[in-house]
Amino acid sequence: MLMFQIRGALNAVQGLPIDTCKAVVTHSSGNHGQALALAAKMMGIPAHVVVPRTAASCKKAAISGYGAVIVECDPTDESRTAVAAKTVEKTGGIMVHPNQDPAVIAGQGTIGLEVLQQVPAVEALVVPVGGGGMLAGIAVAVKTIKPDVRIYAAEPLNADDCYRSKVNGVLTPNPKHPTTIADAVKTSIGPNTWPIIRDLVDDVFVVTEEEIKQATQLVWERMKLLIEPTAGLGLAAVLSRQFQETTQDIQNICIILCGGNLDMSSIDWVKEPLRYSN
Amino acid sequence: MLMFQIRGALNAVQGLPIDTCKAVVTHSSGNHGQALALAAKMMGIPAHVVVPRTAASCKKAAISGYGAVIVECDPTDESRTAVAAKTVEKTGGIMVHPNQDPAVIAGQGTIGLEVLQQVPAVEALVVPVGGGGMLAGIAVAVKTIKPDVRIYAAEPLNADDCYRSKVNGVLTPNPKHPTTIADAVKTSIGPNTWPIIRDLVDDVFVVTEEEIKQATQLVWERMKLLIEPTAGLGLAAVLSRQFQETTQDIQNICIILCGGNLDMSSIDWVKEPLRYSN
Repeated sequence: MLMFQIRGALNAVQGLPIDTCKAVVTHSSGNHGQALALAAKMMGIPAHVVVPRTAASCKKAAISGYGAVIVECDPTDESRTAVAAKTVEKTGGIMVHPNQDPAVIAGQGTIGLEVLQQVPAVEALVVPVGGGGMLAGIAVAVKTIKPDVRIYAAEPLNADDCYRSKVNGVLTPNPKHPTTIADAVKTSIGPNTWPIIRDLVDDVFVVTEEEIKQATQLVWERMKLLIEPTAGLGLAAVLSRQFQETTQDIQNICIILCGGNLDMSSIDWVKEPLRYSN
Repeated sequence: MLMFQIRGALNAVQGLPIDTCKAVVTHSSGNHGQALALAAKMMGIPAHVVVPRTAASCKKAAISGYGAVIVECDPTDESRTAVAAKTVEKTGGIMVHPNQDPAVIAGQGTIGLEVLQQVPAVEALVVPVGGGGMLAGIAVAVKTIKPDVRIYAAEPLNADDCYRSKVNGVLTPNPKHPTTIADAVKTSIGPNTWPIIRDLVDDVFVVTEEEIKQATQLVWERMKLLIEPTAGLGLAAVLSRQFQETTQDIQNICIILCGGNLDMSSIDWVKEPLRYSN
């Protein structure tokens, strides 16, 4: 875990008034919850994490493992928000939103700084988008330093609020309960990430569930990296015909593999190993 | 794949008389087969790989993908050897044994050289053992340069020929058809690897199937590396009580994660994510 989420959570927690902060609270389908739990533990602050009861059990186990209290909610944006607000009230804690908190967005943006340092020749970054914290943070960091480097978002067709927002020119959240195997990006972009994405993200590529599964399996089988399907979004986008056709002028593309929380026991969709010709 | 096997196969193929070599032949449960297929392709030589019909289909797919001809055999040492001999006769090819060929052993030994270069403070290496090519190669390389660095073998209790050979002081192959989830080490050490192992390997640790599964799952969930169970042997050994009790004087232990060929669709033994306290 913590491939990227610790950056945002730690940045946010380190900015809090430690002496008077009674607790931190967040809602998260898992990754940010783990990150905040760990960040709070490092800073000696209690953490309460609101988690949909449908979240992968490995994510819940990791959150508990980092010492946070889990508070269950229904798997809807409304329930998350309501239960989190109630938890803030009850604990006197401070809410650290998983993707709209500016300190979280800035923290995730350090991914972009590192990519520019490590791969100076990079021409584009491809970033999965759910709430948009990672995407917005990376876009701000990269476009500030190297405006010519393109920032592309990758999104499931089944939860394509970012794509539709860009097309419509106005924040257009997902309808309730989107169904996608990329469970960490079911949430919609929000009021703080939308203006950044609107102004700084060059394009959004949507991919089907089948494309996500294929890309995820390809990373497993050939890179031996145990990513979760949400992290397969970027490769799925890059392998898509649309991406190949519209980005022929660039070569050096960095794909962000943004999470590895996977219930191995829940994988029932891998039928045959992929076939390759080398 | 090819985490280590390409070292041995490529070293062996590069030593062949390219102009007169009609083909290379090997038998392999998969990893060496892939490595030889790729090495032969790189050198422009046809490859024929004898594979037990029970081998993971991802391994067969990868061997075919690298352009080699697959020849199926029964899952026994006798059938492997017989079918390989017949294939050598039929093709006029040269046999490259997966673990007893000296060039293969030497090639695998480069792992040891790299570990010494990258981790000068290393005090022990823990290496899974099947046919013993990787173990013997690493032992020769490491003990030549730094004799004080310990070489430990890790082996399934269900296929513990290396352990029993060391105890008996004489090469003691596995009974036929050992059953272990670590399918790449079902084979026994042989006439070329045994004397090296006898003289240079400090100790052999055997682990149960359950210990192998737990260690493999731990690497998946926490390191996000998609190793195959055979590669989990080393960590399983290190986590065992016996290892902990007998190696209290050393700190810097390098565990060789020696393969990542996994049919994700065949994993039916992961029931619950592991619980950790951090």
